[in-house]
Amino acid sequence: MTLEQAAASIAGEQSTGTFTAVPGETESLKERHGARIERITPLEQVAQPSLPGALAPPATQGCYSRGEIVVSFPLHNFGPSIPNLMACVAGNLYELRELSGLRLVDLELPEDFKTRYPGPRFGIEGTRRITGVRGRPIIGTIIKPSVGLGCAELEALVYDLAVSGVDFIKDDELNANPPYLPLREKAETVMRAIGRAADKTGRKAMYACNITGDIEELQRNHEHVVKAGGNCVMVSINSIGFAGLAYLNGFSEVPVHGHRNQWGMLTRHGQLGMDFRVYQKLCRLAGADHLHVNGLGSKFYESDESVARSVEACLQPMWDGYSAMPVLSSGQWAGTAETTFERTRSVDVMHLAGGGILAHPDGPAAGVESMKQGWEAAMRGIPAEEYAKERVELRRAFDKFKRKERAL
Amino acid sequence: MTLEQAAASIAGEQSTGTFTAVPGETESLKERHGARIERITPLEQVAQPSLPGALAPPATQGCYSRGEIVVSFPLHNFGPSIPNLMACVAGNLYELRELSGLRLVDLELPEDFKTRYPGPRFGIEGTRRITGVRGRPIIGTIIKPSVGLGCAELEALVYDLAVSGVDFIKDDELNANPPYLPLREKAETVMRAIGRAADKTGRKAMYACNITGDIEELQRNHEHVVKAGGNCVMVSINSIGFAGLAYLNGFSEVPVHGHRNQWGMLTRHGQLGMDFRVYQKLCRLAGADHLHVNGLGSKFYESDESVARSVEACLQPMWDGYSAMPVLSSGQWAGTAETTFERTRSVDVMHLAGGGILAHPDGPAAGVESMKQGWEAAMRGIPAEEYAKERVELRRAFDKFKRKERAL
Repeated sequence: MTLEQAAASIAGEQSTGTFTAVPGETESLKERHGARIERITPLEQVAQPSLPGALAPPATQGCYSRGEIVVSFPLHNFGPSIPNLMACVAGNLYELRELSGLRLVDLELPEDFKTRYPGPRFGIEGTRRITGVRGRPIIGTIIKPSVGLGCAELEALVYDLAVSGVDFIKDDELNANPPYLPLREKAETVMRAIGRAADKTGRKAMYACNITGDIEELQRNHEHVVKAGGNCVMVSINSIGFAGLAYLNGFSEVPVHGHRNQWGMLTRHGQLGMDFRVYQKLCRLAGADHLHVNGLGSKFYESDESVARSVEACLQPMWDGYSAMPVLSSGQWAGTAETTFERTRSVDVMHLAGGGILAHPDGPAAGVESMKQGWEAAMRGIPAEEYAKERVELRRAFDKFKRKERAL
Repeated sequence: MTLEQAAASIAGEQSTGTFTAVPGETESLKERHGARIERITPLEQVAQPSLPGALAPPATQGCYSRGEIVVSFPLHNFGPSIPNLMACVAGNLYELRELSGLRLVDLELPEDFKTRYPGPRFGIEGTRRITGVRGRPIIGTIIKPSVGLGCAELEALVYDLAVSGVDFIKDDELNANPPYLPLREKAETVMRAIGRAADKTGRKAMYACNITGDIEELQRNHEHVVKAGGNCVMVSINSIGFAGLAYLNGFSEVPVHGHRNQWGMLTRHGQLGMDFRVYQKLCRLAGADHLHVNGLGSKFYESDESVARSVEACLQPMWDGYSAMPVLSSGQWAGTAETTFERTRSVDVMHLAGGGILAHPDGPAAGVESMKQGWEAAMRGIPAEEYAKERVELRRAFDKFKRKERAL
C-alpha cells in the first residue's frame, strides 16, 4: 500500500465508495460527493506497522510509509453536525487494514459550524468577570480525597479552602452524584460553605460542581447547582460526549468546566486516535468554557512540551471567539508556575493544585498564597526559589514539594 | 514499577488517593471508599513499553511486566451511572506514567445497573417479530453509495432492494441528515418505497434510518421516522455517547440499530483502550437492540477470531436479558455465511452485505437469494461451493466475489 493508495482508501471509504463498484456511484455523484485528496506529504519509512492487522507493505517497498494526508470532505455530505462529522473524519477509518496507523492531526471546519454551535457562553472573559481575577491565572484546587467526604466534612473543607482565598474549587471527576452524598445535597453543601466564606472574605469563589450523568439528569443537576447559588458546572466531556456537552451548553447559566478524563485512550499512542489540537476545537465548538490540558511536571505520561502545545491550542482564536480557558492540573504546586509561564507565556489559564494546596505544610491558605507567589515570581521573571527566600509560603512549598519531586 | 505498584496506582488514583497524602484521607474513609485489588496475574515481560511516556522499569528488573489486574470499586463511590462509571474505570488511568500500557478487558457490574438502565426494548426477539424472520439470520443490506443519492434515486433503490426480498436495509453511517436530503424527507422517501414494495411482496422490510445528530435532534428525528411508518432507527453510538444512546432508548418506539464507527480508535492497539467484551456490555446496557461487530473476512484489520468472539459476547445473556443482535457487516457476501456459521454456530445475527447484494451480477434480488442460499448451505453443513452447483444465484455470487477475494 503506497501513501497514494492509502489516501484513496480514506477518501473513498468515507465518501462515496465501498469495497466493490456499485451501480449508483456515477461520475456526477462522485464529482458532487466524493472526498478530495488535497495533499500528500511523505514522512519517514518504518519497518514495523504501528497497529496490528495492517496489510503487508508492497513487496517493492518492503516497509511501511508514513505521511501526512490532507483530505477534504464536502460539507453537504453531512452538514454542520459534530456527531456526523465524527462519523466521517474519525469513523471506520481506524479499522482499515490499508492503514498501519492513523491519527487525526488537525481539522479545519467551515463557518457553517459556527452558525450551528454558538460555543462557550463565558470563556476566559466570563470566567474572569465571575471570579474577579485579572492579570494573573485563576488559582484553583480540587476536593481531595476525591470521594468519600460526607456532608459535614465537605462543608468544612470547602469553607477552609474558600476562606483561604482560592479563586476556584472543583469536584474531582470521580465525584458527581454519589449515593452517599447526592448531587443536590452536595451542591447545597458546597455553596453554603462558599457563601459563608464569601461573607468573611468579600469574594465568592467559583465552584465547579461535577454534574456528569445521563442526559435526562443534566438539566436537573444544573438546576440544583444554580438554585444552590452555584456559579460553575463541571462535566466529564467523554462521558457525556460532544453531543451531551453541546446539549448542556444550550441551557447552562454558568460556565461549563470540561474535564477530559478518558482522553488518554484517544491519544496516548502516537499513531492512533487524535491530537489535542483536534479535540480542543471540538470541545470549544460544543461549548466548554474551561478545558483540562494536564499540567507541566504532572504525574501523567504527557511531556511538558505537549502540555504547552495544548495550552497554546486552546488560546488560539477560533473564528474570533470560542474562547475557552485551559486548565492546568495534576501534580501541580507553587513551583510549577515558573515552568508553566516559561513555556506558555500566558496568564490566561486556570492553575489547579489539589495536594499542592491542601497538603501545604502550613495549610490551604498558605498553599494558595504560595501559588500566587509562584506566579508573581514567574511574571516578574524572578527565579521562584530566589523569590521564595523572602516569602515563607513559597519557601515552605519548595521545602516540601520540591523535595518530593527530586525524590521521584 | 512492579505489577503490585501499578495495581496500587490504579486503585489509588481512581478512588481516594492523590499524588501526595492529604489530611482527609483517613483510614475509615479508605476503608469505605478505597478500591480493592482483588487479583494480580503476572503475564509476560517485555523489553519495550507499549505506550510512550511510561516510567522506566525498576533497575533490578530491567523490563516491563504485563499482567492482568482485577480491581473492584465501591459502587457507592459513583452509583449505577454509565457516565460516572466510565470516569472511574476508563478515566485518567490511561494517562498514568506508572502504566506502560493499559486495557480494560472486562467489566462486571452489579445488578443496580439493571434497575437504572432497562436495556434494549426489542433485542433479538423483537427484531424477529417485526421482520417476521425465524430460524435463519436476518439478511440485510446497506444503501450504497453511502452518500449522494437524491430523493428519486434513493426511492428507486430502496424499492428495488425491498422488493428483492431483503429483510433489512440500513443507511450508511455516513448518511444521517444531510442538507441535500434532510432526514424527514429521507425517512418519508425510504418508507414510501418500503411500503410500495410491501404491497407487492406482502412483507415489510425493516429500515434502519440513521438519525445520528445532536441530543435535541434525536427525539425529533425519531418522530420523523416513526411518523413516516419507520420501524428502526440507527445511531453512531460513539457520536452520541452511551449517554445519548440511553437517552434515545428512553423513548424509542422502534429498535435501535447501533453502529460502532470510531470504535477502532478505542480498541485497535492491543495494549490501549478496551476490549469489545466491555464495550458491548455498555452498549446493551444503554439500549442498543442491534450492535455492529464487523464481519468475518471483512475489509477491516480485525481477525476472524476476534469477530467471532464479539458475536459470542453479544449473544451471552446479561442478567437474563439485555438481548442485542450482533450485526455482521463489511465486505460480506453469500460466501461469508459459511465461515460465519462455522465460527459462531448461531443464526441470531444480522448479516449485511452492501456491495455483496447490490453488485451481484444479476441484481439485488439475486444477491439476496444468494445470501439466503449461503446460509442454507451453512446450516445444512453442505460446503457452499458444492451447494452453489445447483443454485444459480449462489454460483454467480461465487463467480464474482470469490474471484475478487482471491485477487486480494
